[in-house]
Amino acid sequence: MDQYSIGVDLGGTNLRAAAITTDGRILSRIAGRAKLSYGRDTVIDDIVSSIHKLRDECGSSQLLGVGVCLPGFILMEQGIILNSNNLPEFEGLAVRDVIEEKLGAPVVLENDANAAALGEHWMGAGKGVDDLLLLTLGTGIGGGIISGGKVLHGYLGMAGEIGHITVVPNGNPCGCGNQGCLEKHASATAITGMAKMMHLGADLSSEDVYNLALQGDEKAIMIFDIVGRSLGIALATLINIFNFPLYLLSGGPLPAWDQFAPAMLAETRRRSFAFRNTDTRIEKATLGNEAGLFGAAHLGALSRRAVPRAPERQPPSPIPL
Amino acid sequence: MDQYSIGVDLGGTNLRAAAITTDGRILSRIAGRAKLSYGRDTVIDDIVSSIHKLRDECGSSQLLGVGVCLPGFILMEQGIILNSNNLPEFEGLAVRDVIEEKLGAPVVLENDANAAALGEHWMGAGKGVDDLLLLTLGTGIGGGIISGGKVLHGYLGMAGEIGHITVVPNGNPCGCGNQGCLEKHASATAITGMAKMMHLGADLSSEDVYNLALQGDEKAIMIFDIVGRSLGIALATLINIFNFPLYLLSGGPLPAWDQFAPAMLAETRRRSFAFRNTDTRIEKATLGNEAGLFGAAHLGALSRRAVPRAPERQPPSPIPL
Repeated sequence: MDQYSIGVDLGGTNLRAAAITTDGRILSRIAGRAKLSYGRDTVIDDIVSSIHKLRDECGSSQLLGVGVCLPGFILMEQGIILNSNNLPEFEGLAVRDVIEEKLGAPVVLENDANAAALGEHWMGAGKGVDDLLLLTLGTGIGGGIISGGKVLHGYLGMAGEIGHITVVPNGNPCGCGNQGCLEKHASATAITGMAKMMHLGADLSSEDVYNLALQGDEKAIMIFDIVGRSLGIALATLINIFNFPLYLLSGGPLPAWDQFAPAMLAETRRRSFAFRNTDTRIEKATLGNEAGLFGAAHLGALSRRAVPRAPERQPPSPIPL
Repeated sequence: MDQYSIGVDLGGTNLRAAAITTDGRILSRIAGRAKLSYGRDTVIDDIVSSIHKLRDECGSSQLLGVGVCLPGFILMEQGIILNSNNLPEFEGLAVRDVIEEKLGAPVVLENDANAAALGEHWMGAGKGVDDLLLLTLGTGIGGGIISGGKVLHGYLGMAGEIGHITVVPNGNPCGCGNQGCLEKHASATAITGMAKMMHLGADLSSEDVYNLALQGDEKAIMIFDIVGRSLGIALATLINIFNFPLYLLSGGPLPAWDQFAPAMLAETRRRSFAFRNTDTRIEKATLGNEAGLFGAAHLGALSRRAVPRAPERQPPSPIPL
């Protein structure tokens, strides 16, 4: 039997879990709704029972470790989650300890965008690239920075808040207190918000706006132009700061690539000497909404390896789930 | 006798060199003009003879290594300098090889802002802080990123171009092809440029503008307000991206701190959740125009240590200068 680890991805809408081998094959997966309205205990129970189910199915003795990713700032040392707009019920909770206690086994916690970046680095569009940055376009815009093959956390685990780069100094107000944040001009929510602002329709999804743009609607085309230029300003800044070889985009608006990418790439080219003069790449991520699962599972496997084993004195034991 | 290394800092105006002990004491220093108008051979000769002079004075056998810093992109692997506005004569030159050949000894090359950041990390305002960022306000604005105690170079050595963060999307044009770059709104050159634009006077230095602001001149006060707010936008972006504990400023306009810092800190606070909610510090660097020397010397010493020694088989020899 193959050795594997379990990755869990808790979002504002979905709860996913998967058992993934050390060479990146998914042995089994579970996907369901995140029952946030039932309270956090229910959600934690669902996380733990998903892990149990996958372990029972794939075998205790081959399980290397468990990683869990979720949105919000994570104080890495304490395993506490802060300021997660998508998981308000979890504010200030020592998530790692709570899960570990119910599970009876160690767990690695990571921010979802960081985990997704690590997943793409491990098995996706960033395979073999040790320095890369992932932008996840969704309700907001998250970011994950992989530097030297590892997640760049910052001193409190708050690094990678790419969505809050200022791209329009007097732009749309943001819940973070800033205005003109990238995520207020280029996320899926920003697309629907701008459509409303422009009286394109009140209940349009970002996909609806995309379809209007495809049909030649000038307002919809302008919205994707704003999305592209905003992303371009941020990407040029990121390239000028990091000089990484690869910048990946993922998330709901990705199918609209042809609508926003030309403006994005032109803006990046104009604003970054390094982008114009090197082979720096801006590309689509390839793992879709499973990138976080891959990253979380990878962290689970790595955590196990990091624990010094002493096989002579005591036989390696399966994680006591 | 103490072990030491030699740091050399070549700028558009000055050439400095110093012999610095491993615990940060300057044993001897040389400072003179960078004779760029005489051609690059003369400048290289001056660098080499400065190193010789310091070595003769402080002893060959205690010399651990030599580091040289200069402005421009440095392709780290090849030791080639690119796009240095301050050293046009050196464009495309394999500086490291040329110096090593004339010197007959290995040399470490580093970008001046990176070296300054490393100097501050080693012996200045960033002592003991492994993750920090330095902004050098001068003719342009340079940046040095220290992550995990090491310079973050990017894949081609072009990282840290903080001066080219876009802070005003439709702002002043920049030589890099962008507009609204930080350095076009907050460098010493930007201060004098804005003074000219506002008809404050054609030949004012940034110090003159500072003195006018001190005397209550509203235009001069507005200029420093723009400087502060531009720095604040960039710093908020940097804090949101890196979540480092320390951001340092250095350079000519630093004595005007009281004029620009209030606007800078207010803008950073407004635009960065992490800055408002943590003990992240924005402070003055302390090594002044010797930070680069310290960083270069530190790199020289480290490079020597990185070479595996085999004392049993061959006695450690002095660098054959």
